[in-house]
Amino acid sequence: MLKEAIYHRPKDAFAYAYDERTLHIRLRTKKDDVDAVYLLFGDPYVWKDDAWQFDKQSMQKSGCDALFDYWFIAVQPPHRRLRYGFELHAGEDVLIYTEKGFYKQAPTDDTAYYFCFPFLNRIDVFHAPSWVKDTVWYQIFPERFANGNPRLNPPNTLPWGSVDPTTTSFFGGDFEGIIAQLDYLVELGINGIYFTPIFKAPSNHKYDTIDYFEIDPQFGDKQTFKRLVEACHAKGIRVMLDAVFNHSGYYFAPFQDVLKNGTKSRYKDWFHIREFPLQTEPIPNYDTFAFVPEMPKLNTEHPEVKQYLLDVATYWIREFDIDGWRLDVANEVDHQFWREFRQAVKAIKPDVYILGEIWHDAMPWLRGDQFDAVMNYPFTNGALNYFAKENVKANEFAHTIVNVLHNYPQNVNEVAFNLLGSHDTPRILTQCGERKEKVKLMFTFQFSFSGSPCIYYGDEIGLTGGQDPLCRKCMVWEKEKQDRDIFTHVQKLIALRKQYRALRFGEFHMLEANDKTNHIAYVKTYDDETIVCLLNNADTSLTWTVPFSLKDKTVINLWTNECITEQTMNIEPYGFRMLLVQPTSAV
Amino acid sequence: MLKEAIYHRPKDAFAYAYDERTLHIRLRTKKDDVDAVYLLFGDPYVWKDDAWQFDKQSMQKSGCDALFDYWFIAVQPPHRRLRYGFELHAGEDVLIYTEKGFYKQAPTDDTAYYFCFPFLNRIDVFHAPSWVKDTVWYQIFPERFANGNPRLNPPNTLPWGSVDPTTTSFFGGDFEGIIAQLDYLVELGINGIYFTPIFKAPSNHKYDTIDYFEIDPQFGDKQTFKRLVEACHAKGIRVMLDAVFNHSGYYFAPFQDVLKNGTKSRYKDWFHIREFPLQTEPIPNYDTFAFVPEMPKLNTEHPEVKQYLLDVATYWIREFDIDGWRLDVANEVDHQFWREFRQAVKAIKPDVYILGEIWHDAMPWLRGDQFDAVMNYPFTNGALNYFAKENVKANEFAHTIVNVLHNYPQNVNEVAFNLLGSHDTPRILTQCGERKEKVKLMFTFQFSFSGSPCIYYGDEIGLTGGQDPLCRKCMVWEKEKQDRDIFTHVQKLIALRKQYRALRFGEFHMLEANDKTNHIAYVKTYDDETIVCLLNNADTSLTWTVPFSLKDKTVINLWTNECITEQTMNIEPYGFRMLLVQPTSAV
Repeated sequence: MLKEAIYHRPKDAFAYAYDERTLHIRLRTKKDDVDAVYLLFGDPYVWKDDAWQFDKQSMQKSGCDALFDYWFIAVQPPHRRLRYGFELHAGEDVLIYTEKGFYKQAPTDDTAYYFCFPFLNRIDVFHAPSWVKDTVWYQIFPERFANGNPRLNPPNTLPWGSVDPTTTSFFGGDFEGIIAQLDYLVELGINGIYFTPIFKAPSNHKYDTIDYFEIDPQFGDKQTFKRLVEACHAKGIRVMLDAVFNHSGYYFAPFQDVLKNGTKSRYKDWFHIREFPLQTEPIPNYDTFAFVPEMPKLNTEHPEVKQYLLDVATYWIREFDIDGWRLDVANEVDHQFWREFRQAVKAIKPDVYILGEIWHDAMPWLRGDQFDAVMNYPFTNGALNYFAKENVKANEFAHTIVNVLHNYPQNVNEVAFNLLGSHDTPRILTQCGERKEKVKLMFTFQFSFSGSPCIYYGDEIGLTGGQDPLCRKCMVWEKEKQDRDIFTHVQKLIALRKQYRALRFGEFHMLEANDKTNHIAYVKTYDDETIVCLLNNADTSLTWTVPFSLKDKTVINLWTNECITEQTMNIEPYGFRMLLVQPTSAV
Repeated sequence: MLKEAIYHRPKDAFAYAYDERTLHIRLRTKKDDVDAVYLLFGDPYVWKDDAWQFDKQSMQKSGCDALFDYWFIAVQPPHRRLRYGFELHAGEDVLIYTEKGFYKQAPTDDTAYYFCFPFLNRIDVFHAPSWVKDTVWYQIFPERFANGNPRLNPPNTLPWGSVDPTTTSFFGGDFEGIIAQLDYLVELGINGIYFTPIFKAPSNHKYDTIDYFEIDPQFGDKQTFKRLVEACHAKGIRVMLDAVFNHSGYYFAPFQDVLKNGTKSRYKDWFHIREFPLQTEPIPNYDTFAFVPEMPKLNTEHPEVKQYLLDVATYWIREFDIDGWRLDVANEVDHQFWREFRQAVKAIKPDVYILGEIWHDAMPWLRGDQFDAVMNYPFTNGALNYFAKENVKANEFAHTIVNVLHNYPQNVNEVAFNLLGSHDTPRILTQCGERKEKVKLMFTFQFSFSGSPCIYYGDEIGLTGGQDPLCRKCMVWEKEKQDRDIFTHVQKLIALRKQYRALRFGEFHMLEANDKTNHIAYVKTYDDETIVCLLNNADTSLTWTVPFSLKDKTVINLWTNECITEQTMNIEPYGFRMLLVQPTSAV
């Protein structure tokens, strides 16, 4: 057994509290190197005749990637304390792995050799709002979704959809437009809306906030926003807003005060200013988002700034009953701020959802004290590479997905925000070379995967467009111009997802990944619900043999409601199957 | 190159802020597998002609253990943001390692491949009080250090040192005794005292608290304690108390109230009670420390309990100006409590030291939001195994030490609480088979190692005794009964440590570890100060060749102040050398 490949370190993704009673333990070994792994575990204080008393239980292989196998077990220590180690088998070889290293036999003279999960304290359990697991999100870029009140149009508003947007165009999307189209969203089946920023800001994207306590007048007033939230709630739709707390806009009053009064400004410590007077060339002499002079970085360590932003965060929950905050550039803001942010918002609405924008490995923000979830870009990129760009094959995609799942605890994965596209990425149909069967296959994967899927407005009716600003075209409302085929596909996926818990939050296991045919097959299981999915990501048809015996089982094609009786089937190019598998006696 | 052995994950011990400007980056590779490693790094927002612009700098090998090599580099990103990857060389082979996996060439089309340290926020930097690096601790078990006021003797107090202690003996040690002996501690050279619990409690060890706001009367009153702290401060000695917050004692009033009033007690939620009425057989039906019925676990998630304990924590700082809290069974208390504890105590005394009792891997408590340090038991056990029990050889010990140093960030290591023994372990002289030359060698290692060393009272004068209660014998005050040889040795080590920053907090590099001779050699460096140490952990003498040329250097034996002129020297059994190495021109 390759010792160098064996890895475990308690907490984070390798040993964590799944709930108030259950610990999850994972182990990594070299791929195909180990036949079986057992967890050796017990209460640190249970001894008999000077020997530590431990149990032994078999771990399951939960996945593999290019280099490693991963092993999993869930245990419920009666006294909420655990010492544990691993017994690894390869043929005749046996190896004990502990915090102190490798042994031939499990030591029993001291528990100090072993890994430790000292106590399962309830308050430390990662705990995200449970409604998120049942939510299908829809991302709205308010300037481009629907113009319901032309009187609010900003100057130089262009006729709706008349031209491709530039970085400075306005089309007059607003809250009344959204309210008017809520039934469209209900018809689609979504039950959560993520709004990109709505606060007062000069740009069309509103990421350059002037006033965090004011709605931008082009969208409507607070009354209208309240009406929008209430209308959403009445239809069972949650509302999430975008908090741009890493930086303000250039016209944010405190920054203007600093520009005007320099070192005499009472707001001079609200930002990170390296020298006065402020200059922007060759690069700003104050910290900014990237090197954008119009987006001065806020000093979130400053007590006044912190209080101001926490007031903002609680104000919109308290006054408008919003259900979530999506945190822009969340990774560049200090952890301490996010800890206080969590305390503040959960104190007034315990089931509010906190979603961070983090594009890279985000474990340090997902330990239970900061965010509930991050935008799952590793998922996004994996799906785009495999389905849209086709620059990776089935196996590499499978490894990416197994990695995504093993990078974080399971309770984190269950509420991950899984997006295929956003206002920051080219439209998925465009990335798929406008081949809509590929878009449909991507959606099929997204909606059968665990976590909380999000549709970027218009993707469901085939909007196209390259990188920003082209991915922010106006929503198309004329039915005849919408791709109703994609719409119906997504609608059906959402309906199935709502019907089957296995699709929403079932355990995911990769069954097949074949680079020759480029197909993947996986199973989702929850309690007695088992759904097997097959995706034929190729422009040729596939002869697929169901990877289990149909004998004694009733297998239903969820898409057609037909009973499957043949072991082997033909799958059309870019086709798929979602098969509900039940013991025959249960039907 | 063995890909399975290559490991890096940002934050924790692998990528962390060392100070407000400096990031430390570490990488792990298979031992002797890689010739050179370079860090590829840059600001995520610096691009030119659609290519990300990055720098490349060589990393240094910082140590090795049985399986792995470790690589290190410090960088100061000008805009406090970093994307980075690694370029590994082995002969002609080159491998790029990033967050997204391995590549043959460094990708430049997107920074998303790379590892990310998104922003160096000052408030998130691990920041322990700097005085700890300059502190030599002395642990006092107050019942056994000195009896200065016999009028306070509890009933059945035994004559000082008359017999070996049992679990229930009292000898009447008290504060006045300690005050009277402060000059002894000054003579020894220590400048910090860690007191095991002093609060009202029935046992001799006082870990079973009755009242956290009261001094146990056997030790004195609050006036006397104030006098003790003031006397210590006047002599430059810091004072650390023991906070037993995981559990209370049986006679803690709220627990007594629960015993008496059951479900009607207003304190019933202050503990973790599984069912009423409370029972202790076969095991307690309420959570306890281990299974000890007299030590009911406190419900630190309960707002009243939390407030009570935080009041305790701040009271003793505010009213008595103590300098540190050592946290008993710290690992079983929730993280959230410790975060609030840190906020509370640092708010009233920013440089108070927070030391957790954690025997296992403690990274989750050392991320800057909870503790400043933990009791470094891996160091303790490594030293005991190598020097005292001699059940591991030089190489295994060297690997343990390298592991200790690479398990945590450098700023954490600099304030680690490095002990050889305590009230919970047999006396070191006893563990050394009463061979004091071995004890002296252990001390030599302890005092030349980075971190904050602690002497368990009496170890410096050769107290003996097995496991608790025998390791808690009365301090011996008759000079003729003290081992003055060990005392002088420790005294000299402390004096040298005070003189040389390289000994206190210099970078540690293992130079030699030889299983045949069982010797180790290592170097400590700080700025231009370089000290090479050689420990001959064997009962035979060693012919040692200084592992660098003496030409152009002045090498001074710090123990004898002699100049070393011979390349090869003879080291007596269990002997050592501490050599100050300077360029000749500098002398």
